[in-house]
Formats: sequence, structure tokens, C-alpha cells
Amino acid sequence: MRRVLLLIIDGLGDRPCPSLKWLTPLQAAEIPNMDLMAAKGILGMQYPIAPGVPPGSDSGHLSLFGYDLGREYPGRGVFEALSEGVEWGGVTFRANFATVEEDKGKFVVVDRRAGRIEEEDASLLASGLKELYLLDGKVKARFIHTLEHRGFLLLEGEGLSSSVTDVDPHEEGYYVLEPMPMDDNALRTAEAVKEFLKLSHDILREHEVNRRRIAEGKKPANFILLRGASSPVKLEPFSSRWGFKPAAVAAGPMYKGIARALGFEVFHPQGATGLPDSNFSAKVSKALDLLEEFDFVFVHMKGTDVASHNRDPKLKVKVLERIDAAIEPLTDPPEDLLVVLTGDHATPCSVGKHSGDPVPVLFYGRGLPKDDSSNFHELDAQVGGLGWFTGANMMQLILNYSDRALEYGLRPLPQVRAYVPSIGMLRPLLF
Amino acid sequence: MRRVLLLIIDGLGDRPCPSLKWLTPLQAAEIPNMDLMAAKGILGMQYPIAPGVPPGSDSGHLSLFGYDLGREYPGRGVFEALSEGVEWGGVTFRANFATVEEDKGKFVVVDRRAGRIEEEDASLLASGLKELYLLDGKVKARFIHTLEHRGFLLLEGEGLSSSVTDVDPHEEGYYVLEPMPMDDNALRTAEAVKEFLKLSHDILREHEVNRRRIAEGKKPANFILLRGASSPVKLEPFSSRWGFKPAAVAAGPMYKGIARALGFEVFHPQGATGLPDSNFSAKVSKALDLLEEFDFVFVHMKGTDVASHNRDPKLKVKVLERIDAAIEPLTDPPEDLLVVLTGDHATPCSVGKHSGDPVPVLFYGRGLPKDDSSNFHELDAQVGGLGWFTGANMMQLILNYSDRALEYGLRPLPQVRAYVPSIGMLRPLLF
Repeated sequence: MRRVLLLIIDGLGDRPCPSLKWLTPLQAAEIPNMDLMAAKGILGMQYPIAPGVPPGSDSGHLSLFGYDLGREYPGRGVFEALSEGVEWGGVTFRANFATVEEDKGKFVVVDRRAGRIEEEDASLLASGLKELYLLDGKVKARFIHTLEHRGFLLLEGEGLSSSVTDVDPHEEGYYVLEPMPMDDNALRTAEAVKEFLKLSHDILREHEVNRRRIAEGKKPANFILLRGASSPVKLEPFSSRWGFKPAAVAAGPMYKGIARALGFEVFHPQGATGLPDSNFSAKVSKALDLLEEFDFVFVHMKGTDVASHNRDPKLKVKVLERIDAAIEPLTDPPEDLLVVLTGDHATPCSVGKHSGDPVPVLFYGRGLPKDDSSNFHELDAQVGGLGWFTGANMMQLILNYSDRALEYGLRPLPQVRAYVPSIGMLRPLLF
Repeated sequence: MRRVLLLIIDGLGDRPCPSLKWLTPLQAAEIPNMDLMAAKGILGMQYPIAPGVPPGSDSGHLSLFGYDLGREYPGRGVFEALSEGVEWGGVTFRANFATVEEDKGKFVVVDRRAGRIEEEDASLLASGLKELYLLDGKVKARFIHTLEHRGFLLLEGEGLSSSVTDVDPHEEGYYVLEPMPMDDNALRTAEAVKEFLKLSHDILREHEVNRRRIAEGKKPANFILLRGASSPVKLEPFSSRWGFKPAAVAAGPMYKGIARALGFEVFHPQGATGLPDSNFSAKVSKALDLLEEFDFVFVHMKGTDVASHNRDPKLKVKVLERIDAAIEPLTDPPEDLLVVLTGDHATPCSVGKHSGDPVPVLFYGRGLPKDDSSNFHELDAQVGGLGWFTGANMMQLILNYSDRALEYGLRPLPQVRAYVPSIGMLRPLLF
């Protein structure tokens, strides 16, 4: 039975880039370690959700971890809140500091990330939004800043619902959208959100930080874009679903939140930032340490996705090369380690946002099957020995190649899919 | 419209084997006939159940024959019992003669097959377990030996249920497991099973055959490991589901049982043993004879799987070469024959048990599509013209390439998916 190291390189998949002579970033990058693992291992292509469906950062991970989005997806805000260990009883929204311009009473989104606002500026601005009261004091709003332009909004009070549409148009150059109730229970929530948007805009617009930013030629963070309304939800722990004792190594708030929601122990090594300059080596060595205690370690690396959102293929190539250098220790893995390398979605640099393209995936370990591929990139992955599959198959394939999959029809106990006597659900026969 | 010969080579798929210079058995074997068929035909990869799910011998076949396991899988014991033509009204378990050692009142499984016990020894031991009475005589237990270490247990009496977990831990070095009721209806059954285990252990432990085996340095068959509790079930006949008149050529009890459960006529040619030394040629020539009368002939060859379970890649290579020699007549098939070659699951020699790896598949016949592949092995199959599919797709692909598939939406009769006027389900309108 093998232990598992799952490395998710955010936004890994891509398309040919003009500035890379029409190669993809994976093709253009010098990644000798990934190539070696590709040559000795097996490649495939996976759609994290389904062919052509662009995953969110939350839904892509949740699907790859073997949760059924149709039945189990709670909405994004939950994970943001959990990332900070916040417990709440209301409704949460993922929130961005953004730059808007007024146009005859409407607001046009100029920058969805307020020029990727600096940490300190965001933090200063957030302090003015820590606690606001809406609907005559009946709803309490708490805005919590996490990383860069990111944060989340908690609404607490009677009769709130997460059936509210996004305020964020998800595209620059478009109007900020009115939050709409999706059913009658959400009327009050939509009103509260509208009030919050106005109140926060008034506070941010006049804030000295924004005055200074404008004076410096920077974009003001004068609006809070909201999306992904969600209510607290209890997801089945990863450990009982798949029979692993799981840990996560991540810096981005969302990824820590997802891992916490599924019962992973979460570690944030020093120097890991969730950015292109993150200390990837610190993450890999933390992961290898954790494998002494845990049998499933998920490592998340975000920098590639940031480069893709910035439509900067050359930066993506650099980040891939830095990640490749960091994973050098994985090329010579312990006998009983399965290394899985993939992404939570594609973020083509030419598109600048998540797409529904397939994502290369690599399984690597001693004695595992190999195929004819020799490089880790989209073209070799298309004809690899893992074939094409979707996120829903990922965990079962991981069970299989870590020698944990149970033969169909075996019945240790109905809820246990993996054969793990250590977790104590089965007991020995005694006469 | 073509006739179909489906050849299932048990446990066909594999991984690179160190003792074969890291080739798979299919790559290492000299199989000129399969290679010729691969070069002229089309290859693909199939997951008999789903990616990463290791099929049992029963469930793999059932899925490939187009039965929905979620809805139609009755559990393994049914097929074992049917293999011997036993009709019953209770609960059946697949049973193994095994070797256990006592450890402070618990039992550790030392060998799940009692050193692959010889036919005569197993048969002698079984005669002591032909009829036992449990729960104060209210439940009758019949143990029936089939082949080598294999057999099945029938429990008959009032209020029995198949919702009982396995006693077999499916792995050597682990404790024999207590049978657990999965719902309240199974409480009595779990008790009866426990009593049978104790009673049979007491009988076997003291049996003169086992005393002799120990004296000879062999492993005693001192325990009956049970799994796959199942109740009788009526499956829709293969003929009405797919429109074929089907026959089966098999030696292994399980495979005869499955074929009987689906309404195949079953043939067991002389010299066919279900072992590596089986007379494969006798099976192939029997199959060709049967194609005069039947339009779908399923041939099962077991020796490869036996070699894999013994972790013996060189034996697997030999068995593959013997099978290849036996199928020489298929390389020059009649005009109207579709030959399909695949396995019911992978059994990697390095793992020694069924895995959820994909299995190569070959479709061959005059005038069928071809692809670029030139050899019958995993690597060529990965990029073959049939692509990747699952067991649920197999029969529809067979209908297609035997020119029997109906255009979507056509409705000859609701229960008939295949267009087969010959069997008389369609008739001309008469006023």
C-alpha cells in the first residue's frame, strides 16, 4: 500500500502562446524533473469537472477530491471563511477589492483585483469594513481580508439565504450587477447585500488609502465585488470517504479552506505566499516531512495561475521552472510513494481566466505502469497511458495506483471504499 | 450482420515487470497471431467497471456483458452456486480453503488459498462439511467444493439475508474478520456464519488430511474464508437484452455460473482445466464449431490470471504464448465473424491481485476499421482506434461492429436493443 503525494499546480493546462513561438508554457519551460517523471511514469488528460466546463478554484479541487458537485457543492464563500477558521451561522460571499468607475449611476468594473492591490493597502482598507450593520441593525456584516485583493463577507442575522446571484460580472468592462434573489427566501439577503455594497463603496471611495493610491497613479480599491454566496455545510471527511489520513500544504486562503472543510490538517510553511515568488521548495520539503505522519499529502502551488490571469506566459514558464527545481526530490521517491502531478483547471494565458480545457496529469512511482510519453506537456499527455478521465475518477485512480482499491462487490462495510484495517472499522473474528 | 466470438483472457492487463526487463507480459510474449490481428484490426483500452475500480471475476464479466452492476449485481455466491447447477432459496457465499494461524484467540490469514491446495485434498476435506446444522438446527449449511481451493457455502432456513460483510480480509497477514450484519435483517445470518466458521474450523483442524499435509511440510487447509454473500436473483437473459443466441466455452466454475445466470448454453471441452496447462486449442475449436449454431460465443481462458495471482510473469508470458498459438485459426476468420479479444480485468503480476488498471481490447474482422497499432499490448492499445471506454460500452460497440446496432430512437420493441430479425422478435405487418 502506497502513500500519496498529490501536487496541484494551479491553472496548469494552457494553449499555445504567440510569445512562446506558439508553444504552451509547459512545452516552452525547461522542466527536466517533470520530464524525467513523465518518461518513467504515466500521463493522461483529465477534465476536473467535465469536458469544457471551467472549474472554479473551489469546485475543481472538490471534484478532484472525489466529491459530487451536483450533490455536495456548498458554494465558494464557505471555503473562504473556513480558510480563516471562521465559524458562522449566516451567509458568506467570496469578495474582491476592485476598481470601478461610475457611469450615469451604474458602475463599470475597471479592474476586478484593484491592480492586484498590495497586502498593506488592502489590510488598511479592510479595517474600515470589519463590522457594519444593515437593514436597521438586524443584519451584521463582517468583511475579512485574506490575501492581496481577496477576502470574504459574512452576513449574520435572521432569515438570510444564500440563493443570491453574483454582484461580480466576472469580466472587466462590464457593469457591476444587482444582486438578485433566486427565491422568495432570499429577498432580505439581496436587500442587505445592496445596502452593504453602497455603504462599503461610500467608505472606500473616501478612504485616505485610496486618495493616496490615486495620487500615486494606482487604481483605487473602491468597491467590494461579491460572488459565490454560500451557507455552512457539513461535508463527509476525506478520511472516511477515501481511507487516508490527509494533510495539506498550502498558502492561498481558498485552498486552506477547502482542505479544512474536508478535514485535512493544514500546514503553511514559511515563505509560501500563494504567489509566483513563493518558496516552492519549502512546500515540497514540508510535504515530504508530513508523509512520515500522514499517508495523503496535498500540496497546492498557486503561482502559475496568477501568471495566467495576468496573461503573462513568460512568467508562467518561469514559475513552472521554479516548481520543477523544487520537486527534484520527488524524482527519486521512496519505494511506497505515489506521486500525482496535475492542475485544478487550465488557465490559458491567451484567455486570462479559467477554461474548460483538459489538464495534463502524471502518475509516478516505482513499479507503476509507464507509457511512451517522454515530456510533461499537453501533447504527450493526450496520448498517455492513463487515457482521458474526469475529476470524478481521480480518487479511484489514486486508490488503484496506491494499491488501496477494493475489488468491486467486496463488503468490508458499506461506507468504506478503501481497505484500511488501521482505521478500525473492521474487527477480527473471535469465537 | 456478423457473428461474434468474444475471447476473455482472464487478468490480461498488467504493469511492467522487473523480471521481464520492465516490459509487461503482453510486451514480452511472442504472440505473432495476436500481433497480426492488432496490426490488421483496431485496439483500445477498456475499464471493465470504471477507471481505477478493480473488478471481481464475476462483476467484470457482468459489466462487460452489459449488465448494470449498481442495479443488477447479485453478489458473487450466486454465480458459484449456478456453476454447479445448484438451485437454492437461501444465501450463498464464495468460499476458499485457507490457512490460518491462531494468535491470542484471533486468526491470522497465512495463505488465502491453503497453498493452492490439490484437488483431491480439497475434495476429501469438503466431504466433512457437506451438511452441517446451525442455530439449533434451524439453518442448514452446505459447503460445496468446486475447483482447487474454491467452493461455496449455501445457508438455508428462515429469515436469512445476504447483507453480511466478508469474513475474508482479502489480504494475507491480516486477521480473519468478524461477519457483521449490515442491517437488522442480517443479525441471524451473521450468527449462523460465525457458528459455521467455528464448526468448520474445528472439523478441519483435526482432519487427517491436514495432519498429513503438515507432516509433508504443506499448509493445512484449516479455515473456510467466506465472501460475497448473495441471494438468488433473476437476471434478464443475454439473448433478449442483446438479441444474440449465446454460448459459452469455459472451465472455471465462476465463469460457467455467470454464463448460466445469463442464459448462455455452457460447454466445457475436454482438457480445459481453468489452469495454465489448459487445452486452449480445444476451447477455440469448440468455439468455432459452436458458431455454426450460435451467433455469440464467449470463450473464457483463466490461466493468465492464475499466473498473475502467483506473481509469476514468466508463467504469464508462457500462458499468453500458448493462447496465441491456440487462436491461430482466428487470424483468418470467416467473412461474417467479429473477433473480440480482451480481459475481464488487469491482474498485475507485481500486485498479485485484480487491479483497476485499464485492459487492452482488440476488435478484428474483415472490412472493419484499423488503426496505426502493430502489436497487441498495453502501449499500442492506449493510442488505438477504439479509444478508451468502460464495460458499460462494450456490448454496444460489439453490436456496432457486428452491424447490429440500431439507430438511436428506433423502437422495434422496448426490450430489444439489437436489430435481429432472425430470432423472430420482429415480424411483418399483416392486415
